[in-house]
Amino acid sequence: MKRLIILGSTGSIGTSSLDVIASNPDEFRVVGLAAGTSSDRMCDQIRAFHPSSVAMNDATAAENVRKSFDTMVRVYEGLEGMLSMIGDIDADAVINGLVGSVGMVPTITAMENGMDVYLANKETIVMAGDLVMETVKHTGQRIVPIDSEMSAIYQCLKGEHPSHVKRLILTASGGPFVDFTQEALDSVTVEEALNHPNWPMGTKNTIDSATLMNKGLEVIEASRLFGVSGDRIDVTIHRSSIAHSLVEFIDGSILCQMSVPNMRLAIQYAMTDPERMPSPYGGLDFTRPFSLTFEPPDYERFPCLRLAFEALERGGTATAALNGANERAVEAFVDGDITFKEIPEMIETAVDRHRFIERPDIGDLIETDRDAKRRIEEMIDLL
Amino acid sequence: MKRLIILGSTGSIGTSSLDVIASNPDEFRVVGLAAGTSSDRMCDQIRAFHPSSVAMNDATAAENVRKSFDTMVRVYEGLEGMLSMIGDIDADAVINGLVGSVGMVPTITAMENGMDVYLANKETIVMAGDLVMETVKHTGQRIVPIDSEMSAIYQCLKGEHPSHVKRLILTASGGPFVDFTQEALDSVTVEEALNHPNWPMGTKNTIDSATLMNKGLEVIEASRLFGVSGDRIDVTIHRSSIAHSLVEFIDGSILCQMSVPNMRLAIQYAMTDPERMPSPYGGLDFTRPFSLTFEPPDYERFPCLRLAFEALERGGTATAALNGANERAVEAFVDGDITFKEIPEMIETAVDRHRFIERPDIGDLIETDRDAKRRIEEMIDLL
Repeated sequence: MKRLIILGSTGSIGTSSLDVIASNPDEFRVVGLAAGTSSDRMCDQIRAFHPSSVAMNDATAAENVRKSFDTMVRVYEGLEGMLSMIGDIDADAVINGLVGSVGMVPTITAMENGMDVYLANKETIVMAGDLVMETVKHTGQRIVPIDSEMSAIYQCLKGEHPSHVKRLILTASGGPFVDFTQEALDSVTVEEALNHPNWPMGTKNTIDSATLMNKGLEVIEASRLFGVSGDRIDVTIHRSSIAHSLVEFIDGSILCQMSVPNMRLAIQYAMTDPERMPSPYGGLDFTRPFSLTFEPPDYERFPCLRLAFEALERGGTATAALNGANERAVEAFVDGDITFKEIPEMIETAVDRHRFIERPDIGDLIETDRDAKRRIEEMIDLL
Repeated sequence: MKRLIILGSTGSIGTSSLDVIASNPDEFRVVGLAAGTSSDRMCDQIRAFHPSSVAMNDATAAENVRKSFDTMVRVYEGLEGMLSMIGDIDADAVINGLVGSVGMVPTITAMENGMDVYLANKETIVMAGDLVMETVKHTGQRIVPIDSEMSAIYQCLKGEHPSHVKRLILTASGGPFVDFTQEALDSVTVEEALNHPNWPMGTKNTIDSATLMNKGLEVIEASRLFGVSGDRIDVTIHRSSIAHSLVEFIDGSILCQMSVPNMRLAIQYAMTDPERMPSPYGGLDFTRPFSLTFEPPDYERFPCLRLAFEALERGGTATAALNGANERAVEAFVDGDITFKEIPEMIETAVDRHRFIERPDIGDLIETDRDAKRRIEEMIDLL
């Protein structure tokens, strides 16, 4: 019986994780949940999964949960509260489904407290990949990725020696605008961007998928998680989201991981690795003809992908600046403050101008994140 | 430095293996070669690779080789000679590129003499899979498959637990007649059948590819090699021969091994496993769009595939009978004695009528092979 803490439990990764747990009540037990403001949904989750502790980022939400459960559940408050909860609870692993840079410190805290981390929060690795991988090394804990592309690579690398990897090939659905001309792209609306073809996911990830920054962040994540430099990572547009990524080995042999597009599969895999368990999500149907297509991405129309490769090559604080700037720019786009086209433009400027540090510590990275966001805000103010 | 014996050295697997060795002279050394009748090509190979011993199945060919090299190379003669050579030489592994049932005994002999076997000769496993796998168990030697489909499955299973396998999906190019109607199939010629689209290979394998018996034999081989029952093995038509086979795990996740279609890749993989080595055979090009298609096979138009599944389910001597009957029927088709359509018809009759033994020993299997071939000959005589 694995005891799990779920961070971001009311989000799409969190609820999918709870689906997997609900299907396997003998294998997994929820001991802690953390969310932001959705106190009603948190109360429902407490009733369904009986964690001993929960954390709400919002003070009013925390109070609401406290009122509903009195002393039966310990309710923590704020980011500090979430970190305290991780320190107080005895758990085997943390599922990190938080969105954005807020996920970084909890990842490190969890490992320092002897827990594995099943990681959907790619910003953790994008911002602080080196620090996180050092923590992996000195704690002996594992990071098992949950997003389907990283999980695919992780599965392809099982039993293989890292030195035999030639390159990683990340698949991208292409997002809703894959076939848009440059002109059409310049005038896309928030509603269009939120209409993602294959995967149900949160607002931030959906916009990132439309700009291909999602894939850019994954390129950085893959580089850090698997120790492969950016020049050995390719992106391919694969519209049906069946092939989740590929690894090419030095002999020219490629392994590719595939499945029906259901994020619960990668979540379950992380929760069971190195074992596997039957799942109710179905397999590919070979009784009917189907085809898998692969196309090179267009770096001109989707400059976010180029920006990510450039930040990765620069290293240091550059990826944290990219990530912070992107977070704020996406927010501004969703709020109607900037256009779709301005997202990469502003990110590029913010990253170019940020105070670069070659070997940042965690404080530097948090400051870089804030600085990049501030620069985006300044640009918005000047519009 | 791995010391290798190559059986069938002048055939397509043998010469491809020698190509791999020639590209990696510091890694591999040829210590023994065996071939049938091609004494000139054997002499060339001796000059290029300097084995201490060779075996020729044909007595005249053996004599020719002896004349050319005098006492510098020990020349064995006949099947018995080949087995003696395996017993006399100190080698790490045998590459078994023999064609047909003659490959069975050398496989077992090699393992009994402390050598691993890199196996292209699928008939070994089709005839005597249980016996061979018992030999693997009691000798502790390894069988690493060389044909691309088995190698693909072997690579997909690396680091995975056998109990987590849900099913194997073997890819088939479909052969030259994949789109032929039943009527067109009835009248195909030997020349048409020998015109295989993706792979250069020997006559027997090319005809087997046209009837899909090739895939049927691989279904049986995969079942025995990987311990997966026939009802958990699927075949899919994949025309471009880039995806070499797939493994579905119990959670619905699929691993697929891909590469450019070059048999040297699987040969090199077997020779280096569990390591990998750079190869000169190129990788897939993701800078251009491409697609991979998968279609279910037509068991009506290609009855050999159905016959193979049926023989596998029956077990005992049935697969040896299938294999022996197929060998003789293919020979008869190439000789112009029977039509393409008669290949599966005669095989079905021969297997139905053979003296079935539930738990055959090696003598029973050899007798079954002879008996099945004799039954095909009797049917030809009655035409």
